Amino acid sequence: MSASFRKLALIGIGLIGSSIALAARRHNLAETIAIATRKAETLEEARALDLGDIYTLDAAEAVKGADLVILCAPVGAYEQIMRTIAPALEPGAILSDVGSVKKHVVKVVTPYLPAGVTFIPGHPLAGTEHSGPSAGFAELFIGRWCVLTPAADVDPIQLEKLSAFWRAMGSQVEAMDAEHHDMVLAITSHIPHLVAYNIVGTVADLEADTKSEVIKFSASGFRDFTRIAASDPVMWRDVFLTNREAVLEMLGRFLEDLSVLQRAVRNGDGPALEALFTRTRAIRRSIISAGQETAAPDFGRPPQPAPAKPEEGAA
Amino acid sequence: MSASFRKLALIGIGLIGSSIALAARRHNLAETIAIATRKAETLEEARALDLGDIYTLDAAEAVKGADLVILCAPVGAYEQIMRTIAPALEPGAILSDVGSVKKHVVKVVTPYLPAGVTFIPGHPLAGTEHSGPSAGFAELFIGRWCVLTPAADVDPIQLEKLSAFWRAMGSQVEAMDAEHHDMVLAITSHIPHLVAYNIVGTVADLEADTKSEVIKFSASGFRDFTRIAASDPVMWRDVFLTNREAVLEMLGRFLEDLSVLQRAVRNGDGPALEALFTRTRAIRRSIISAGQETAAPDFGRPPQPAPAKPEEGAA
Repeated sequence: MSASFRKLALIGIGLIGSSIALAARRHNLAETIAIATRKAETLEEARALDLGDIYTLDAAEAVKGADLVILCAPVGAYEQIMRTIAPALEPGAILSDVGSVKKHVVKVVTPYLPAGVTFIPGHPLAGTEHSGPSAGFAELFIGRWCVLTPAADVDPIQLEKLSAFWRAMGSQVEAMDAEHHDMVLAITSHIPHLVAYNIVGTVADLEADTKSEVIKFSASGFRDFTRIAASDPVMWRDVFLTNREAVLEMLGRFLEDLSVLQRAVRNGDGPALEALFTRTRAIRRSIISAGQETAAPDFGRPPQPAPAKPEEGAA
Repeated sequence: MSASFRKLALIGIGLIGSSIALAARRHNLAETIAIATRKAETLEEARALDLGDIYTLDAAEAVKGADLVILCAPVGAYEQIMRTIAPALEPGAILSDVGSVKKHVVKVVTPYLPAGVTFIPGHPLAGTEHSGPSAGFAELFIGRWCVLTPAADVDPIQLEKLSAFWRAMGSQVEAMDAEHHDMVLAITSHIPHLVAYNIVGTVADLEADTKSEVIKFSASGFRDFTRIAASDPVMWRDVFLTNREAVLEMLGRFLEDLSVLQRAVRNGDGPALEALFTRTRAIRRSIISAGQETAAPDFGRPPQPAPAKPEEGAA
């Protein structure tokens, strides 16, 4: 199969950018892959990992002649990037991104968009708690959704070209309105991250000896929150700065519900607690039957982790 | 090696009880295993799974002649169980439990304790989101902590006997004060569960079409909360009814911190957000270096789950 794009330019080469580079090469989706990033150190890391064909600190250089340009930097850097690359974007090119918020991205990118360039915002719902160029892997997008939020008047041929690119990397593609994306992601992703960061922060403030016990006994629930709260700080800062309205709306609902729950605990209202705890199981079942999760216990974690201090079994 | 106990009586046979039965048999820790439970249906399930040697609906019958009795029922049932079994407990026996709260357990059990019986409350920090006798497996306790909260004047020989029992099943044993246990577990386990139940409840209340999208796109963070929120509702109801003070104390801290975070989002305070999100990574690293978690991305989830609706890659 011949490559679908002549030149793919990735602006930013963290977990998502490096995974796109590896997947695009594996599936022969671009003849040339150009990588641009702001920091020389990151660029050298990408080069050492052999992620592309062209490496540059000049984003405008990278997009020259590219028929697919994907912004893979934190959303807060988009405006600066657009200022740099806009004059170099080629007519006929598709410009896309992988940011976790979409309404803000449309607002920031659109004013800089040259005529003849098709902007199709995107968001692959994939990731791990690791970041940087070495965190990427070609399989990251397999079985994951990629949400595209094109304008109503998007060129359908360009939209299909970009959709096919994501499908070839293993994703399922779904198109929706940018505003709707931001509301759905606020509750599925942004609030869970905010809450996880918050609880880990509460622990970080505990007295030293209690904290060390919390770490020791973290397997009882807490550690799952720490995984989420280990994600890239700059990326998440930008998410909360740029999806403020939807996050505050959903956080408001969450806090209202938590007040009711707090009162049920204070009043010792057993039936109310049991009712909620029963109702939530149905959501879990829906997620498993939607193929979004394994039913294996503990996320399929191995049942026998190595103990911190192995002791001889004695009885 | 000869069995350490003549007769082990398990009162309640859910995830933890059945795992103890399987592990005790595998490691030859008891000559006879007696299983008592309140529901005939559960008892028949335990029998079909061949979990023990004696099956009875009469807890008093099960504890007769037992030198180790472990309460494995929800904490809310302890008082009723103690009323039933107290007259049948044998002098010299160890009575223990696996409940997630300890101060309340001491308060409820102690008044019924016959002379000559050593009560050593216990809490294995192990579990999955599944419940019932068929959820158990012999490896559940390997590499996991078991916290014991004996009274200050406990017989050290009995304490060592029970500790050795848990070590033989693969656990690391730690003794601490019941009140301290409840505070540490409030933050490592009870608050994470409360918050997870709450956010899943918030989603359950969304309009139907948004809810189905939340389920579809749950891999972006939300689904990890649903695992925790799928745990046994009755057990968790009892946790919040019986560890109210510590839970409300820790929930108060959590909510204070969340108000600060909410304000940072509202004010668009990037530096404050980034500072918190950076600080929380250190806690994650501590947990990994304490051997309580794998550093593999995504809890070691397989990177290529089957897509819900497989599509042909096309480009």
